[in-house]
Amino acid sequence: MPAEADTSDIAWLQAMLDAEAALARAQARLGAVPAAAAEAITRAARADALDVRALALAARETANPVVGLVQALTAAVAANDPHAAEYVHRGSTSQDILDTGTMLVADRTLRTVRADLTRTAAALAALAARHRDTLMAGRTLTLHAVPTTFGLKAAGWRQLVLDAERRLAHVHASLPVSLGGAAGTLAGYLEYARLAATDDTGDDGYAHRLLDAFAAETGLARPALPWHALRTPVADLAAALAFTAGALGKLAADVQSLARTEVGEVAEPNGGSGGSGSGSNGNGRNGDGVRGASSAMPHKRNPVLATLIRSAALQVPVLAAGITQCLAAEDERSAGAWHAEWQLLRECLRLAGGAARTAAELAQGLEVRPDRMRENLGLTGARVVSERLAAVLAPRIGRAAAKRLLTAASAEAAADGRELYAILADHPLLDGHFSAAELAALCDPADYTGAAGALVDRALEAPGAS
Amino acid sequence: MPAEADTSDIAWLQAMLDAEAALARAQARLGAVPAAAAEAITRAARADALDVRALALAARETANPVVGLVQALTAAVAANDPHAAEYVHRGSTSQDILDTGTMLVADRTLRTVRADLTRTAAALAALAARHRDTLMAGRTLTLHAVPTTFGLKAAGWRQLVLDAERRLAHVHASLPVSLGGAAGTLAGYLEYARLAATDDTGDDGYAHRLLDAFAAETGLARPALPWHALRTPVADLAAALAFTAGALGKLAADVQSLARTEVGEVAEPNGGSGGSGSGSNGNGRNGDGVRGASSAMPHKRNPVLATLIRSAALQVPVLAAGITQCLAAEDERSAGAWHAEWQLLRECLRLAGGAARTAAELAQGLEVRPDRMRENLGLTGARVVSERLAAVLAPRIGRAAAKRLLTAASAEAAADGRELYAILADHPLLDGHFSAAELAALCDPADYTGAAGALVDRALEAPGAS
Amino acid sequence: MPAEADTSDIAWLQAMLDAEAALARAQARLGAVPAAAAEAITRAARADALDVRALALAARETANPVVGLVQALTAAVAANDPHAAEYVHRGSTSQDILDTGTMLVADRTLRTVRADLTRTAAALAALAARHRDTLMAGRTLTLHAVPTTFGLKAAGWRQLVLDAERRLAHVHASLPVSLGGAAGTLAGYLEYARLAATDDTGDDGYAHRLLDAFAAETGLARPALPWHALRTPVADLAAALAFTAGALGKLAADVQSLARTEVGEVAEPNGGSGGSGSGSNGNGRNGDGVRGASSAMPHKRNPVLATLIRSAALQVPVLAAGITQCLAAEDERSAGAWHAEWQLLRECLRLAGGAARTAAELAQGLEVRPDRMRENLGLTGARVVSERLAAVLAPRIGRAAAKRLLTAASAEAAADGRELYAILADHPLLDGHFSAAELAALCDPADYTGAAGALVDRALEAPGAS
Amino acid sequence: MPAEADTSDIAWLQAMLDAEAALARAQARLGAVPAAAAEAITRAARADALDVRALALAARETANPVVGLVQALTAAVAANDPHAAEYVHRGSTSQDILDTGTMLVADRTLRTVRADLTRTAAALAALAARHRDTLMAGRTLTLHAVPTTFGLKAAGWRQLVLDAERRLAHVHASLPVSLGGAAGTLAGYLEYARLAATDDTGDDGYAHRLLDAFAAETGLARPALPWHALRTPVADLAAALAFTAGALGKLAADVQSLARTEVGEVAEPNGGSGGSGSGSNGNGRNGDGVRGASSAMPHKRNPVLATLIRSAALQVPVLAAGITQCLAAEDERSAGAWHAEWQLLRECLRLAGGAARTAAELAQGLEVRPDRMRENLGLTGARVVSERLAAVLAPRIGRAAAKRLLTAASAEAAADGRELYAILADHPLLDGHFSAAELAALCDPADYTGAAGALVDRALEAPGAS
Repeated sequence: MPAEADTSDIAWLQAMLDAEAALARAQARLGAVPAAAAEAITRAARADALDVRALALAARETANPVVGLVQALTAAVAANDPHAAEYVHRGSTSQDILDTGTMLVADRTLRTVRADLTRTAAALAALAARHRDTLMAGRTLTLHAVPTTFGLKAAGWRQLVLDAERRLAHVHASLPVSLGGAAGTLAGYLEYARLAATDDTGDDGYAHRLLDAFAAETGLARPALPWHALRTPVADLAAALAFTAGALGKLAADVQSLARTEVGEVAEPNGGSGGSGSGSNGNGRNGDGVRGASSAMPHKRNPVLATLIRSAALQVPVLAAGITQCLAAEDERSAGAWHAEWQLLRECLRLAGGAARTAAELAQGLEVRPDRMRENLGLTGARVVSERLAAVLAPRIGRAAAKRLLTAASAEAAADGRELYAILADHPLLDGHFSAAELAALCDPADYTGAAGALVDRALEAPGAS
Repeated sequence: MPAEADTSDIAWLQAMLDAEAALARAQARLGAVPAAAAEAITRAARADALDVRALALAARETANPVVGLVQALTAAVAANDPHAAEYVHRGSTSQDILDTGTMLVADRTLRTVRADLTRTAAALAALAARHRDTLMAGRTLTLHAVPTTFGLKAAGWRQLVLDAERRLAHVHASLPVSLGGAAGTLAGYLEYARLAATDDTGDDGYAHRLLDAFAAETGLARPALPWHALRTPVADLAAALAFTAGALGKLAADVQSLARTEVGEVAEPNGGSGGSGSGSNGNGRNGDGVRGASSAMPHKRNPVLATLIRSAALQVPVLAAGITQCLAAEDERSAGAWHAEWQLLRECLRLAGGAARTAAELAQGLEVRPDRMRENLGLTGARVVSERLAAVLAPRIGRAAAKRLLTAASAEAAADGRELYAILADHPLLDGHFSAAELAALCDPADYTGAAGALVDRALEAPGAS
Repeated sequence: MPAEADTSDIAWLQAMLDAEAALARAQARLGAVPAAAAEAITRAARADALDVRALALAARETANPVVGLVQALTAAVAANDPHAAEYVHRGSTSQDILDTGTMLVADRTLRTVRADLTRTAAALAALAARHRDTLMAGRTLTLHAVPTTFGLKAAGWRQLVLDAERRLAHVHASLPVSLGGAAGTLAGYLEYARLAATDDTGDDGYAHRLLDAFAAETGLARPALPWHALRTPVADLAAALAFTAGALGKLAADVQSLARTEVGEVAEPNGGSGGSGSGSNGNGRNGDGVRGASSAMPHKRNPVLATLIRSAALQVPVLAAGITQCLAAEDERSAGAWHAEWQLLRECLRLAGGAARTAAELAQGLEVRPDRMRENLGLTGARVVSERLAAVLAPRIGRAAAKRLLTAASAEAAADGRELYAILADHPLLDGHFSAAELAALCDPADYTGAAGALVDRALEAPGAS
Repeated sequence: MPAEADTSDIAWLQAMLDAEAALARAQARLGAVPAAAAEAITRAARADALDVRALALAARETANPVVGLVQALTAAVAANDPHAAEYVHRGSTSQDILDTGTMLVADRTLRTVRADLTRTAAALAALAARHRDTLMAGRTLTLHAVPTTFGLKAAGWRQLVLDAERRLAHVHASLPVSLGGAAGTLAGYLEYARLAATDDTGDDGYAHRLLDAFAAETGLARPALPWHALRTPVADLAAALAFTAGALGKLAADVQSLARTEVGEVAEPNGGSGGSGSGSNGNGRNGDGVRGASSAMPHKRNPVLATLIRSAALQVPVLAAGITQCLAAEDERSAGAWHAEWQLLRECLRLAGGAARTAAELAQGLEVRPDRMRENLGLTGARVVSERLAAVLAPRIGRAAAKRLLTAASAEAAADGRELYAILADHPLLDGHFSAAELAALCDPADYTGAAGALVDRALEAPGAS
């Protein structure tokens, strides 16, 4: 899974090294670090050259991994250019590097996640268009309510996916560099610049220029203020990821509801060679394996994609809640709230990213069974349009009487298996009001999908994911 | 507290009645309901005329309060206009009314919350400007780090408040009406319109026109699709409220950190008559009572405002997590996920709203003590600029040697109480590098606030809350 | 609902007044307060005599409701006995009263909750016994897996309910009084005792005796230490309530799964007059109303009980998480963590209590449909015992070959509608291994319920709820 | 960190292999599997022989790692004993193996965690005893309240640690094997036993005997019922871990409060060579590194241990909430709720385990500074005993007058820096009531620690961790 790779230990380490290198180059732009030193630091800033495990052990002593990282990077630079080593992490603080590295990790992960959401939305748009008029039971509180269409359902899934993509896009565009120095005043950076006798530290502008340069070198945004203890970027990211997982969870919940043995209106792509003809991108499954295979029951093909997504939808919101609580960070750097963010955020990225990739696969390969939809709709007979009958009867026999009549007749139909319209046709209260043919027409669920088609059309006119 | 009133049982009931009335008027605009009936419904839709407790009891039988509400409203309308009673809740479903009512409650609550945030931001801007250069210790992981200014701290608080206000404003502008009918197809509305032989139901446009009219009558936004099971509006609202509570929690955490007996750099407004001269709006405190009074200890004046805000900052994110999880709602209406939202959302509104009101009071009346800030800064002596000394010494004696020297000298200063610059002045390694006066100047914390002032200036240039 | 009443504003207020009265009587036992004063305080400590709304408003000024409560109680006592008024809240602190009051509220609520759980468990035991051998499909990951029995399912529900009851019983038995005075040393109580020249304050034992007496007067347990900042009792309570809601959520999730229109294996009690013959206690439903009625669709009878329970199961764990976080309370009384507990705990009690009451009603009235269970099982034909066939075939044709054969034959059966045993009977690989009759017997799901019956028997032998 | 190793991928894999091997041995005990096959399986069940990464990739296809694991184990067994390979995973299902493996991981992790808690409690008991009478300010809502002792504070920390250890011990003793087969009826196990013609499958007892044998082979407990969808064991574990993290969070929050620069009453063990003489076990810190070193500020020694613990205390409760929600699992195996548990539980174990190890180090090495405690207490002067003065004055001048006088005099003392007792001595209302000496004695905080000593004594008499 890409989201695993994008958020691995090594990815995070590389992102922090990229932050160190970008910082050196940004200072070099402003004359505070020699260009050659910035180049030497950039060349040495490679995660594959460092001992990840030793860094992890050292991290515990300082409650963050940067102190050890700086030592390792300094040694790596010094091995080739002892003079350049003096410029590593110059004027900086652990949090600048860790926060900026985190934003780089997020930036890289969100690219993949958003692409997966865009693919998912496109596949769902195709489903919505293809099934614009595919009749099925609308279900509320687990029971058949009134008819709807599969197209409207798919359009709704797409809407949520687009909502998620937009929220991520918004956050993505504003992921900022972190630059504050020891306590958010950038004093260390300014001091080194002063010592380097750069031309432009005489005024207050150096800090702003350094922020701009660091943003340019990383490709991240420039923050309004140093945000060591103003955790909007992390909270926003967590919230958008929680939304994404939750939104995809709607798709998963519905697929599970519709895939149940008794319902059988959709099936997951089996991912196998023969497949169901419903599209599959066939990546990475094991030899004998049809996806969804059970270790014990040969006949089963479990809806594993929806299962993985639903699992993420359950988890990410609670993880994100922990991150949002970390907004209440005391002082110029919190002793604990900052530290609680890292692993929670990593899991949010990993799970939401995994869910997006899985959703694309699910949406692209979903097997839809209009015949089963129609067949299931038949289970409720005309009761599924009892709302309509109530509307039509009310002007004739009064609203309350209509409701009482339909409640009783529906119960009778459910108990006896007689057709509702036949019961109504025989009912003395309705004598002379409708012909049998009129009643039968009123009871046809296919004629009672309301604005489903029009809603699908309007929804699909709207632009897709950015 | 306004947020209590805005989210009370009676407020929610009134909002649902407003939704019923707006729906009747919207249908009347399109000719599906007689104008006189819509007027009669609007007149009768008053919460103070209904039995709130009976409705609450009835709600349990149907898992929502609308079934009972419709009966009560119908009876109230019928009392004056039996014919109009036929048009109550016409074509509608409980969720349309409850969701729309919820959005109206949110709309009303957010007005107050946002106004309170705007007041808070303004008060914090004034603090930031007034204390642009007020020196204080920057603290990280509970310890003095390097100097900062109170102005920069206040500017950071304001930034978070503005962030919260913008997120709420964004959500506020998009709060939509809910209109879907029994299962999101609007079929019931269309059926009644057809029966009313309105001109415009022959085409697919009636649903769109009804959505527009309902939005216009309520003042809410028009959704892209019926959202009975697409819970973006509620999830967005919860996320923005969680952010708000968390963001205000930063202010509260800092006030508590600075108000501790040993620190004493700020104090809460006592809200009392004589007061501390630090401004107070004096609303609603009990007779003998200075705010923050202890039941047992006459000398205490507890920081109760920060306490209440911090309490909200802890709660709202976990409540909001439950709401975000409800995105994974199955079918056309979830059997439980929808129902879990109501109370969680009410608490989110209530707590975030309470926190915003409290924050305004806190920000407007905060007592700031620059003398204590300076005095506390003195506790760490020149150690608070050890970062600077490291920067200055490095080019003379090498980076590693400088760090070792300063670590040892800082420890000696902390242990003996000797001034760091005196220890350094005596140190053989530095012999000849600096005069005592140079060292003393380097050790002055007032000269090491970095870009604090420039950052405050830039932050305050940015526009305030919308 | 009892849990609403048990946790209402007035109930909480009365519990705090009970704490004040019990404290006075406990001090009177030890001679530190005149017996007559304790009696006067006890007589005056009635919530219905106080102005709840004024107390709520005052609470905000001191971040807790006790300061105002003490003033009101003092006035009420003084009205009849000015001398006794001097002894109200003597030596005490707000937290002693609020915490003890909270424990009294919990004590009262848990009595009801546990009784409801016990009734639920009994009803489920009856279901398990009655349906010990009622065959139904076992379902995993939404699909038919292998057969099981409804009795085993009901025995599992009961097990969880008993688990919940035991956890609540454990917490219930240890709910402690809170007694610490201003900062947990009981100094104020000792000082007043010293001033009263009671005999027994010369030694260290007075504090212990007072703790014992207060426990005796309230009926609560005696804590090991004052727990103002050691929040085990509240965290334990929250955890047990979260468990309870979650455990009942299993019952609800299953009822919803089985009640779906296409499944139809169970139905909720309709609570109505005629009813389904499946028992109902008929409390409190509105006139025209069958429970679960829809505002729009006369044919529906929504599973509202399961819906309410599932809603609670989603909410209580996140609320409880907030309470567990409050364990990390700083100092002798936290500025915010303590305050965050109150409303969260109230909601936990209310929701878990509501779920328990609802579960009792659901379990007592659940309509079970063995015919539909058998019918649904037929949908999967012999595939539902493919696991068994794999076991039987493996020794004959090898394990891997057996699995391959069954996977292919199951797919064929699902696609064609042919019976699996017929496909197998014709298969060349099995030629000569089984007679058609043997195969048909192997394919009978009724003969493949494993130890279901034995497990039910063993489970029901275990003692019920305490 | 041990908890990292105990919960690593490889540890989990090994635990699942241990479950497979134990299952084969249990079946061998009952004659359903040849003893030699069980031995061959046990020999082959070594995680270091498998390809962890390939298993992780395969896991996604089946939504659990067991399907691939069984294939790999079967191949490993077959390599040495093709006949034995037929007996791998016989009659079993993925969940039996994964759940049992999880319980084994928990069992191993809890051993370490509980030992760390026991060490922590012992260290805190020593602190409580040593500082039984060490005077310090009791602080409530961030402010000095009344005096307390450091011994009472340490005794409270210990109490919470013991509470945590007891909750973990309770859960630890009941961690059960999971054995249900495909849908919780054990049908597959019984079928294979029947085919093996073991003597004892004719009756219903085989399932119970197999459960007993599996429990014996793993060392885990025997469950009342198969718990594939009855998730009490996982929920209980999560709750106890959340409690543990939260309880340790109290210690961390207090250490941070007391370690602040302005307070300075405790310091963390620096873990370094020289150290502070306060004990340290010196494991695993990097070369140049004193623990808590800052990357930028040579003078700082950050409270990193408390920081790591507080971070865990914030995270584990929200993670555990997700697990508790998974109790509401539908059917015989949930499609998603089960899957959400794994990573959440792993993080709970890892974080709570890390916090326990860190707490032991912190408690064993905590540097306590009684002089600073006394000095800080002096900041509030006699105001810190204003509660006492109120008690003493009330009988002389009336309760309300006493409170008013002390509130005013406290404010005056705080403002002027005059001693409270001097202000009182001069006050006309008290004229003649007390001598200056009497007042001074009443104002001595050392004489107003209430029952602190007695409470410590009683707490330390109680037995320590099990």
